[in-house]
Amino acid sequence: MTGSNLAAALPEALTDRLNALLGEHFTANASVCGHHGGGGMRHPNLPPQAVAFPATTDEVAAVVRLCAEFRVPLIPFGAGTSLECHVGAVAGGVSLDLSRMNRVLRVSAEDFDCTVEAGVTRMALNTHLRDTGLFFPVDPGVDATLGGMTATRASGTTTVRYGGMRENVMALKVVTADGQMIRTAGRARKSSAGYDLTHLFVGSEGTLGVITEVTLRLHPVPEAVAAAVCAFPSAEAAVSTVIEALQSGVTPARAEYLDAVQMGAVNTAFDLDYAVADSLFLEFHGDSESVQSQARAFGELATANGGADFRWETEPEGRERLWRARHQAGFAALSLRPGAVPWSTDICVPISRLAECVVETRADLADTPFPGTMLGHVGDGNFHCILLLNLDDPIEMATAAAFDARLVRRALAMDGTCTGEHGIGLGKQAALVHELGDAVKVMRAIKRVLDPDGLMNPGKIFSAA
Amino acid sequence: MTGSNLAAALPEALTDRLNALLGEHFTANASVCGHHGGGGMRHPNLPPQAVAFPATTDEVAAVVRLCAEFRVPLIPFGAGTSLECHVGAVAGGVSLDLSRMNRVLRVSAEDFDCTVEAGVTRMALNTHLRDTGLFFPVDPGVDATLGGMTATRASGTTTVRYGGMRENVMALKVVTADGQMIRTAGRARKSSAGYDLTHLFVGSEGTLGVITEVTLRLHPVPEAVAAAVCAFPSAEAAVSTVIEALQSGVTPARAEYLDAVQMGAVNTAFDLDYAVADSLFLEFHGDSESVQSQARAFGELATANGGADFRWETEPEGRERLWRARHQAGFAALSLRPGAVPWSTDICVPISRLAECVVETRADLADTPFPGTMLGHVGDGNFHCILLLNLDDPIEMATAAAFDARLVRRALAMDGTCTGEHGIGLGKQAALVHELGDAVKVMRAIKRVLDPDGLMNPGKIFSAA
Repeated sequence: MTGSNLAAALPEALTDRLNALLGEHFTANASVCGHHGGGGMRHPNLPPQAVAFPATTDEVAAVVRLCAEFRVPLIPFGAGTSLECHVGAVAGGVSLDLSRMNRVLRVSAEDFDCTVEAGVTRMALNTHLRDTGLFFPVDPGVDATLGGMTATRASGTTTVRYGGMRENVMALKVVTADGQMIRTAGRARKSSAGYDLTHLFVGSEGTLGVITEVTLRLHPVPEAVAAAVCAFPSAEAAVSTVIEALQSGVTPARAEYLDAVQMGAVNTAFDLDYAVADSLFLEFHGDSESVQSQARAFGELATANGGADFRWETEPEGRERLWRARHQAGFAALSLRPGAVPWSTDICVPISRLAECVVETRADLADTPFPGTMLGHVGDGNFHCILLLNLDDPIEMATAAAFDARLVRRALAMDGTCTGEHGIGLGKQAALVHELGDAVKVMRAIKRVLDPDGLMNPGKIFSAA
Repeated sequence: MTGSNLAAALPEALTDRLNALLGEHFTANASVCGHHGGGGMRHPNLPPQAVAFPATTDEVAAVVRLCAEFRVPLIPFGAGTSLECHVGAVAGGVSLDLSRMNRVLRVSAEDFDCTVEAGVTRMALNTHLRDTGLFFPVDPGVDATLGGMTATRASGTTTVRYGGMRENVMALKVVTADGQMIRTAGRARKSSAGYDLTHLFVGSEGTLGVITEVTLRLHPVPEAVAAAVCAFPSAEAAVSTVIEALQSGVTPARAEYLDAVQMGAVNTAFDLDYAVADSLFLEFHGDSESVQSQARAFGELATANGGADFRWETEPEGRERLWRARHQAGFAALSLRPGAVPWSTDICVPISRLAECVVETRADLADTPFPGTMLGHVGDGNFHCILLLNLDDPIEMATAAAFDARLVRRALAMDGTCTGEHGIGLGKQAALVHELGDAVKVMRAIKRVLDPDGLMNPGKIFSAA
């Protein structure tokens, strides 16, 4: 679906100068623009009027300055994998596709850090690192760019142990709305030097400037890894097992909940024979001794909560099969209603409230007229419902919106958040105000002063006005 | 020493209304004002014209609004322990002493978090937590308030393992310059909901608003703790041992370097008989098995680097004696030159460059005409020189300033920072610009929009103009 995009055509003088700057790496080709519109899930596709493919920070700065001169919006674009239409051209303009900025600039194995251009994907980085004994852990499932993951403050399955982008970005190179290049920090492990601009740009969704380089923390590849799937008698039993483990000091590297509906879909899609029950997908990292002791301690808690049918995978192939099933759970869910469009919710609550929140949400989901699954990063208190919808049925879409609004209200009443990891984009703007109230005015003030003409990814996080 | 303070007297109408609001908890008493001037080290004491002692966030907001109405500066004050004159009243005004806001509002043992008023000190919090099995680890040595530690982005001896305030503050309640109360986040472990205002205020040094409540991560009290002092043949050997330990996955809870001069001072001041040599003060946390294996692994690396004379303390009293010696090292250093004023430097570099930086700085320090010691949190790459100076000798002070400038340049050339944990305040403003260049313009823009009249702790981080 392509939404309406009311912006006027780009000024010819601008396209001439972008052509002169970038040559074949600037295009207004409709198909290329159509692939940069951020559609998906419940969101319309909102193509830009042109796409620029800069190769360097200097080229990014030149594009930013040109767009500023002509007052044309600019939308930074990584891999286009975001779920809240972060890259849709709400007000037209130029999409700034960073995929050519794909160099790993530096790896310091001794300091456990590296610097990459914003267009490097997380999998490409890990391939680059494979002989260093280090890896970059943040894993949102898809192969997003590290610039995009930074811009949306992404996290994912390993956050319970390694943190998300918030914890793993050390410094950024950014082109601000006026075309200046800034470096937000050096490479020291800590610093008290002025305002924390690094964290201001982590999660800013392209609305304050263009991230062109990212300095990241790396982690040692664990000596031993064990993964398992375990079935439970209820959602509460599964979730409680993870919470009890964390509270007793056992921190899995991944602790993923999938409900029985989702497990059935996974079995069908990937020809597996897991129990069709509320389940946990787990992974433990450490030396072989500690992996064994963690697995034993976790197993005891699971058994006490009625968990059974532990299936362990210690070889890479088995683990890969297991995590493919988890990471493609959204795809698998689609088999429950062929032709449906998925809508993923994203709340996160303090872990002490998680079991209650999951149980209430499960009951609410059972009352809706469409199929839906539940899954999530329960070690962080974050879970998703995947609602399978007929986008052409306005009553069904309104019912889904009401379900999501109830879910957000439930999470906020538990001191949680409307978005654990997907971001605000177009989809959560009302929820953000509901969550943080007057703090959103402070955010708008920062936006106003750093992007006075409102050209950096306008209409995201808050409306353009 | 009292510096000049050129501000006019406070408007009588303002003092009348502050008196009406706070009664005895508002004073212009010269002695009280004198204790709120932030002097110490090389900095002058710059007393405010009055001090307000609010008891609630509402009272803070009322004081902020009154000062805004009369365009009078407001300087948030915690325990006054900062080292860069953060609380000096550069342009006069009202000091906002938060010591009456000393309640622990909530502890959620299940979620490993708590919320405190800004005036709670870290030791008071840990006393409050003593029956919960949890503790708050960030330890800058002195008993600072948690609001102050947040505002300066403090860290300290345990940061190598537990992180500093940046990693341990989850959410804040803040009164902004226009007297609005905002909450920067909820209690979810992660969130992608808009700009990260929490981290913007962590380290903002009171220049953007007044932090009145802090939500903090807590950590389980380790089952076993062992501390030790170990002597080395050189600074390089001591520092390299810590770096090698971190690189091999052994993360001490504390890893403090003290040079031979400092060890001599510690022996004298506390009647101890440690070897007068470049030394490490260490602590390991975990279950008893892992503490033993960490200590063994660390001991092997130390021995390979020529370390000897390990003195272990596993009982609380012995550990307390050991860490008192470390935490009061600055006091001990004063015995090297009675009557001298200390000046503490604060650079931090990537750990791969630390040994080189320490060795070069040691040589530079040996060439200065005044005594000085070196010590630091070497697991983070952060170390301090304590220069012992005659404040009345302008040539000596200029020599010290030149030494510090060389040290900052050395650290920045190694991609480090001018301040690992003390902050900018009055003392590091030129260094901040040297370190981050145009990024400081972005900081100034944020300051301008969130505090348009420049009343929140003016003259800190950057000059008031």
